[in-house]
Amino acid sequence: MKLVIIGSIAIDDVQTPAGKRHDSMGGSAIYASIAASKLVKPAIVGVIGADYPQKTIDLLIKNRIDLQGLEKKEGNTFRWKGIYTNLNKADTLDTQLNVFADFNPKIPKEYINPKTLFLGNIHPQLQLDVIKKIGKPKIVALDTMNFWITSSINILIKAIKKVDILFINEDEIKLLTGKENVYEAGDNVLKMGPEYVIIKRGEYGAIAYNKKMTFFVPVYPVKKVIDPTGAGDSFAGGFLGYITKAKRLNAKTIKNAMIYGTITASFNIESFSFDRLQNTSIECVDNRIKLLKESMKV
Amino acid sequence: MKLVIIGSIAIDDVQTPAGKRHDSMGGSAIYASIAASKLVKPAIVGVIGADYPQKTIDLLIKNRIDLQGLEKKEGNTFRWKGIYTNLNKADTLDTQLNVFADFNPKIPKEYINPKTLFLGNIHPQLQLDVIKKIGKPKIVALDTMNFWITSSINILIKAIKKVDILFINEDEIKLLTGKENVYEAGDNVLKMGPEYVIIKRGEYGAIAYNKKMTFFVPVYPVKKVIDPTGAGDSFAGGFLGYITKAKRLNAKTIKNAMIYGTITASFNIESFSFDRLQNTSIECVDNRIKLLKESMKV
Repeated sequence: MKLVIIGSIAIDDVQTPAGKRHDSMGGSAIYASIAASKLVKPAIVGVIGADYPQKTIDLLIKNRIDLQGLEKKEGNTFRWKGIYTNLNKADTLDTQLNVFADFNPKIPKEYINPKTLFLGNIHPQLQLDVIKKIGKPKIVALDTMNFWITSSINILIKAIKKVDILFINEDEIKLLTGKENVYEAGDNVLKMGPEYVIIKRGEYGAIAYNKKMTFFVPVYPVKKVIDPTGAGDSFAGGFLGYITKAKRLNAKTIKNAMIYGTITASFNIESFSFDRLQNTSIECVDNRIKLLKESMKV
Repeated sequence: MKLVIIGSIAIDDVQTPAGKRHDSMGGSAIYASIAASKLVKPAIVGVIGADYPQKTIDLLIKNRIDLQGLEKKEGNTFRWKGIYTNLNKADTLDTQLNVFADFNPKIPKEYINPKTLFLGNIHPQLQLDVIKKIGKPKIVALDTMNFWITSSINILIKAIKKVDILFINEDEIKLLTGKENVYEAGDNVLKMGPEYVIIKRGEYGAIAYNKKMTFFVPVYPVKKVIDPTGAGDSFAGGFLGYITKAKRLNAKTIKNAMIYGTITASFNIESFSFDRLQNTSIECVDNRIKLLKESMKV
């Protein structure tokens, strides 16, 4: 297995300035794997309830996503309800953990020793458990959120120590490190262990930061954002698809992965759920990559 | 005259998380001309009071700034007092217009027909008056702020119609156009007249936008910001110094001007007033330009 993704699988109710959708198929593992599937065959570890639509499972399979690690349990799928009053920040109206409450990730033997492991945003103890069970991936990446930083910082730092790449947004890295300056915060995270920290800045793009590198990528200019849900996950998924396919993990690979993730995220936010992203051809992705590179070129 | 700059000349009291300074020499014309002076000999149109220190005038002259358009009047110089609780936004504690209240810009005959005219952030009616008096500059650029958008939008739009380049920050362009999406807002401004709109995004850099171009520049990573006052003015000044010196106003010139302005602004925010910027050598500027370009290069 080349890229194993562990994360949430969710059924969302989302309202944005552009409209709303009931039962929007979401979750970090779903967004990340759809984005990565443009380049590699990703494999999911996650849990769904009896209410999860077969139609969506069929779609995931159609998108070449390996579902051996998808566990189906009695009860309902994890549900999230949120509203975006502007496009930068969601207010959570309701969260029902359901089958996700006692999720204990099981790793199929085919998933052992992947090239890349992506630990999507879940409890850091589960992230640590998966690291123990998965063998020796070449690259381990981790995403997290303010909730875990506030509630479980010691376990989270243990997990961060063990990864090569940390995805984290700007507010979160400040919260994690206590540093107001993102570069000082970045230095702090690098001391914890990761080789690279990817600082996500929403509509302002992202920074790839390590001891030798500060690389800025802007967002692709999307004129009509429909639903920002999953932007960070589809960024990480595209990014990790790119580095999984690449021969070497060097600065050039990281830079191109930043651009790839930016483009998969740009398609993702142009519809509810992953409607637009899954219908996007490689040609469309490549075209936006070319345009984005032009907009960065002096 | 190659570059004429009209704007405010101020004595500020500034407090930031890094400290405070009483009688900090500021104002849009000062910051912009110090930044531009690295490349060209800028000329100022502005007004000061009897309290303006001769030491600062000497410093401006030492920085090759032409002061024929500097009017000295009875009374006090324009004064502004502000506090930054974070580095992104100043709260104004006090404004005393003083000699600036009835400022009626006089243009020395040596200033007629400059290559570039920069209309710094002042009342749009004064900006229009200067356009009438200055002859035929090759390039006219204008900066403004939310106060004029709210209080004098019709006059402001008249002025914007007459310029080639509009500098405006992200919140202001949304306010000016009523569009929440910056690219839609940019399209809207281009319809008003300017060939280029430069959307300033504070710590997230800036976008140069026109019908054929969307160019992103990140900020230079400064680890210790002392005082953000004048960041936008020193960006515009560096930018306009660059295009004034350049042979042609094309996309390549605009892109390099964006980088130049970003670097002059990066030095400006590393001290109170223009202490650091005026002491910065061309070599130091060029070195940061090289580093910034590397951080943008895929």
